[in-house]
Amino acid sequence: MPTNVDVLVSEVGPRDGLQSIKSIMPLAAKKEWISAEASAGVREIEVGSFVSPKLLPQLADTAEVVAHALSISGLTVAVLVPNLKGAQAAVEAGAHKITLPFSASDTHLLKNVRRTPEQMLEETRAIVALLRSLPADRRPKFEVGISTAFGCSYEGIVPEDKVVRLAETAIEAGCDEVGLSDSTGYANPAQVKSLVKRVRDTVGDSAFAGLHLHNTRGLGLANVLAGLELGVKTFDSSLAGLGGCPWAPGASGNIVTEDLVFMLEAMGVHTGIDLNRLLSVRKILAASLPQESLYGFVPEAGLPLGFSPA
Amino acid sequence: MPTNVDVLVSEVGPRDGLQSIKSIMPLAAKKEWISAEASAGVREIEVGSFVSPKLLPQLADTAEVVAHALSISGLTVAVLVPNLKGAQAAVEAGAHKITLPFSASDTHLLKNVRRTPEQMLEETRAIVALLRSLPADRRPKFEVGISTAFGCSYEGIVPEDKVVRLAETAIEAGCDEVGLSDSTGYANPAQVKSLVKRVRDTVGDSAFAGLHLHNTRGLGLANVLAGLELGVKTFDSSLAGLGGCPWAPGASGNIVTEDLVFMLEAMGVHTGIDLNRLLSVRKILAASLPQESLYGFVPEAGLPLGFSPA
Repeated sequence: MPTNVDVLVSEVGPRDGLQSIKSIMPLAAKKEWISAEASAGVREIEVGSFVSPKLLPQLADTAEVVAHALSISGLTVAVLVPNLKGAQAAVEAGAHKITLPFSASDTHLLKNVRRTPEQMLEETRAIVALLRSLPADRRPKFEVGISTAFGCSYEGIVPEDKVVRLAETAIEAGCDEVGLSDSTGYANPAQVKSLVKRVRDTVGDSAFAGLHLHNTRGLGLANVLAGLELGVKTFDSSLAGLGGCPWAPGASGNIVTEDLVFMLEAMGVHTGIDLNRLLSVRKILAASLPQESLYGFVPEAGLPLGFSPA
Repeated sequence: MPTNVDVLVSEVGPRDGLQSIKSIMPLAAKKEWISAEASAGVREIEVGSFVSPKLLPQLADTAEVVAHALSISGLTVAVLVPNLKGAQAAVEAGAHKITLPFSASDTHLLKNVRRTPEQMLEETRAIVALLRSLPADRRPKFEVGISTAFGCSYEGIVPEDKVVRLAETAIEAGCDEVGLSDSTGYANPAQVKSLVKRVRDTVGDSAFAGLHLHNTRGLGLANVLAGLELGVKTFDSSLAGLGGCPWAPGASGNIVTEDLVFMLEAMGVHTGIDLNRLLSVRKILAASLPQESLYGFVPEAGLPLGFSPA
């Protein structure tokens, strides 16, 4: 966490946004986007995913994107990896942080990464072994992101106990921190408070990575508020809500970075992000992804008259 | 407040929604809508406004709508009135509750009802005198709804002190309760907590009517959560977010009743409303207002698998 920032807004658009759309953003635009967001004050960006380019051709240039992002001073460069092979590529590329999506729903896990919970735990341990074999200064931080933590489109309710056990297991396996992902937009504020409390009590404050929330059912920012009130310090979001219509079933529906930053700054919570500069970054997306819809309430309505950020 | 309900969801679509669109909903559809929502468990509906039909032809049939709504057992029939004349019409029609919009911004007040604060206070007192002249069983409850309480599109920041003073003045003038309206979609959760606390401390819990929030900048439900955490018991909302695109500047952008009820019920907060039946009421709007857009995240994404209401 940088100094003079109360909450870290972690941009995941270049990964979660781009993987959810059909258009492929040119490498040059990705670089421009990442540079512009960093210039606006965004301190952490998940810039891509080391996954088979056959599965996600949109992210096939992740190594080059990482190389560019590493050239930006002060930026934490994060990537998603689905397995050991991805972690190896991430290490080779020099990413600062890797996140392994480990679904709390067995069905979702199988569909997402084609592994049983036991196999995924083995993968987690193999990644830990890889990272521990590296010198400390080349070792990325390793987060296990518990996806479908608040419910699953295949299984419905995901028991809290199961999520808490998975968090504990992941930490025991040696990852640095665990995060909670509402991949399906099922979460509500009461549930966010309940689950965050339990997971944090189990793994400890310093091993709780933060919240990855979606706005599929319109509760994204209310869920952020719930987390914020518990002292959660990191929230993921996607510029322009990139990744498909936030209210279409199955769509990504990440919370919109611009709206999130507006809420936080309006509340007096410092993000270190210049909202006007952030809003102007949308132009890069509009120009490079002309067929995609861009979302966001604040970008459409404009900032309130007299608004001054935190 | 009805028994076995934790929070009262007060539907304002037939007033705030319909006044904000160009289409005129036929009287029969209004009746059908109100009946269907009441059947779904909605306990209070603002069914129209006693305002000049020249200004708002969409609401010219308010007296007939009130007459119909009064025939529905257990339903609180609310109307908006801009002045004494409107209050007289509301009394004549037999409405249970009248709300006078009293803007905290002088500029907005002037543009909205063409009165200075002093003139509007006189109007408030005249309405109180009218109501006190009635036998108790024919006397509607009288709320002063403080609009632009969280900021104004003309004036920008509206000082909290001014809102608190207005609340106090309205109660001193003899109204039964005051509510706070974020007419412009400027509010944030920290501000909601701060202002609700101050107003409630000033007028007393029993004289605080509730919150009328808009979703213009996407913070509507986060603001509801802030109010809920302070124990606010009544929230206004509009079915299908009727009243124009919630993210167009100047548009109504009421919070969506379906999304609000979903959030509350998912959190275990009883509204007394059957969400599936509520969702089906949208069909009446779709059929009778074919040129208007209907909004809402939950209606588009569907209920979570395994969702069971509070």
